[in-house]
Amino acid sequence: MKSHGYAAHDKKSPLVPFNFDRREPGPNDVVVEIAYCGICHSDIHQVRDEWGQSIYPMVPGHEIVGHVTAVGSSVTKFKKGDLAGVGVMVDSCRICENCKAEAQPYCVKGMVGTYNARDYKGELTFGGYSNNIVVDEKYTFTISPKLNLAAVAPLLCAGITTYSPLRHWNVGKGKKVGVVGLGGLGHMGLKFAHSFGAHVVQFTTSESKIEDAKKLGADEVVITKDPSALAKHAGSFDFILDCVSAQHNLNDYLNLLRLDGTLCSVGLPEQPLSIAPFAILANRRSLSGSMIGGMAETQEMLDYCAEHNIVSDIELTSIDKLAEAYERVLKGDVKYRFVIDMATLPVK
Amino acid sequence: MKSHGYAAHDKKSPLVPFNFDRREPGPNDVVVEIAYCGICHSDIHQVRDEWGQSIYPMVPGHEIVGHVTAVGSSVTKFKKGDLAGVGVMVDSCRICENCKAEAQPYCVKGMVGTYNARDYKGELTFGGYSNNIVVDEKYTFTISPKLNLAAVAPLLCAGITTYSPLRHWNVGKGKKVGVVGLGGLGHMGLKFAHSFGAHVVQFTTSESKIEDAKKLGADEVVITKDPSALAKHAGSFDFILDCVSAQHNLNDYLNLLRLDGTLCSVGLPEQPLSIAPFAILANRRSLSGSMIGGMAETQEMLDYCAEHNIVSDIELTSIDKLAEAYERVLKGDVKYRFVIDMATLPVK
Repeated sequence: MKSHGYAAHDKKSPLVPFNFDRREPGPNDVVVEIAYCGICHSDIHQVRDEWGQSIYPMVPGHEIVGHVTAVGSSVTKFKKGDLAGVGVMVDSCRICENCKAEAQPYCVKGMVGTYNARDYKGELTFGGYSNNIVVDEKYTFTISPKLNLAAVAPLLCAGITTYSPLRHWNVGKGKKVGVVGLGGLGHMGLKFAHSFGAHVVQFTTSESKIEDAKKLGADEVVITKDPSALAKHAGSFDFILDCVSAQHNLNDYLNLLRLDGTLCSVGLPEQPLSIAPFAILANRRSLSGSMIGGMAETQEMLDYCAEHNIVSDIELTSIDKLAEAYERVLKGDVKYRFVIDMATLPVK
Repeated sequence: MKSHGYAAHDKKSPLVPFNFDRREPGPNDVVVEIAYCGICHSDIHQVRDEWGQSIYPMVPGHEIVGHVTAVGSSVTKFKKGDLAGVGVMVDSCRICENCKAEAQPYCVKGMVGTYNARDYKGELTFGGYSNNIVVDEKYTFTISPKLNLAAVAPLLCAGITTYSPLRHWNVGKGKKVGVVGLGGLGHMGLKFAHSFGAHVVQFTTSESKIEDAKKLGADEVVITKDPSALAKHAGSFDFILDCVSAQHNLNDYLNLLRLDGTLCSVGLPEQPLSIAPFAILANRRSLSGSMIGGMAETQEMLDYCAEHNIVSDIELTSIDKLAEAYERVLKGDVKYRFVIDMATLPVK
């Protein structure tokens, strides 16, 4: 199937228009005409080969929403015209213990990424900076028409990356929860933790974000440049979601956890984390990581968002302004997620 | 009360005979005439001020067993002549949420260490390299006469430090469990994990320990110098207990954990731990620490040992050979714990 979008051809050049082929839809496939695609920080990491193993040409984008234009003969979940979403992964082995446990991101064989990956037949996958995508319906999500579609796009990565650990570690009423960093991930973590009924403390380096954090649901805001402000919370948190990808001292946050508390990092810093042994020994603390959620949990998250009217705070941009958007993401100069309006993609 | 033992007077000099006073026993106190005291690696760290904040003169020793020679008027758990044990702590605040939850090592006010600490009245505490000790019965344990008393001593630190995390993380039948390092802590972790019914893999750098590890209960032994031997176990462990205090690469072991697996470090390395973000992100792994167990759990452990005939493998030594014993501990040249026969302490 003919497709077109924007691609990176190496780690240094800007993304440029690109024509490519996708597979013809099979019996279980859904064809989605892409309306919006979010810009995730990991798009930049991969375009620039900062994690290694980048494959070019690369069409980034894994926060994808749009309308179904065709369905295979066996498809039951979608019909032509329905809204649909695609996230970070488009396939997994389906038979390993983790896939069977609905933990597909942790597929033992290795899940198939939406872009910068090869599917199990060896074909390169291309993401959502494009006009359409073909995905097995099992890896495609239904989306409520109640929500602003553009603002739903970031739920597919930033949303589920924060929803999943908050659910896994039972964040809710009676729990004191911290969110470190108020960016694309952090603002979703804050919204969800607040919605789940926890007492939420937002940590930020920036005094200018205090009012915003409170509007988004923070019960308290701590400016992390002030050591005494942190010290006041020592040993008091049940769970802290660390959404910061820049290097920072995780021991400062570990020390805030009470007995059996967990600090979960979803920010994916590039450098190794330096952990003081006493910081985890004291209060039997845990440092954990988490990826996106499984397919069932992602659908649950989207349904939860529809029910509770939760979307991402976004700034719409156009496909020809990718370079500017990337620079602003790197500076943290966006409230809080860029979403590309795919109507701006030139007709092929 | 007049007491005598061996003390360090600074971080560089050898331990020498030392006379000192302990408090007169109060209504809740037990006086224990010390028969044996284990030598813990942490004794050496503290004698040499390697963790900072050492207080001199220091009488080390927190693996203490002996006979009760006197009890206060309100004591109900002990009578004169009973066996008794004292471990790493001799008091805690008793009213914080952690004390109330029987997690006294994590006392919010800070537990009182058996030595190199100050009690809540400000008095320096002195440990078990001595003829006697006075401890509140709540922080004193009963010991079964069925077991070899000298070999019980290390249970009070090495035993409970491994028993507690294995219980906390539900190690038992159907679980695949790793023990890293076969020393004072490791050999107890191995014995307990085997006794709890887990499939236990012992990790060691030393081929000479293979036979010993199997005798102690290991189902498999992996020589860690061989990367391919480690790689065979990737993503397969439910829990790994890391008992190594020397610097080593924890990511090698994190990568062996399956979904939601935990690596628990009890070895207390001196240097910060360097953790690769992807090593915890993949499989949603946790890096945790753990201290000794609470008072109820320590008694449970001692009772379990009596029921299942578990003690430490020890080498008896005399108080005048401390320097030699310390050097051999540092070289890992002991199977697997030195215990001081306190009958060798010169009469004052």
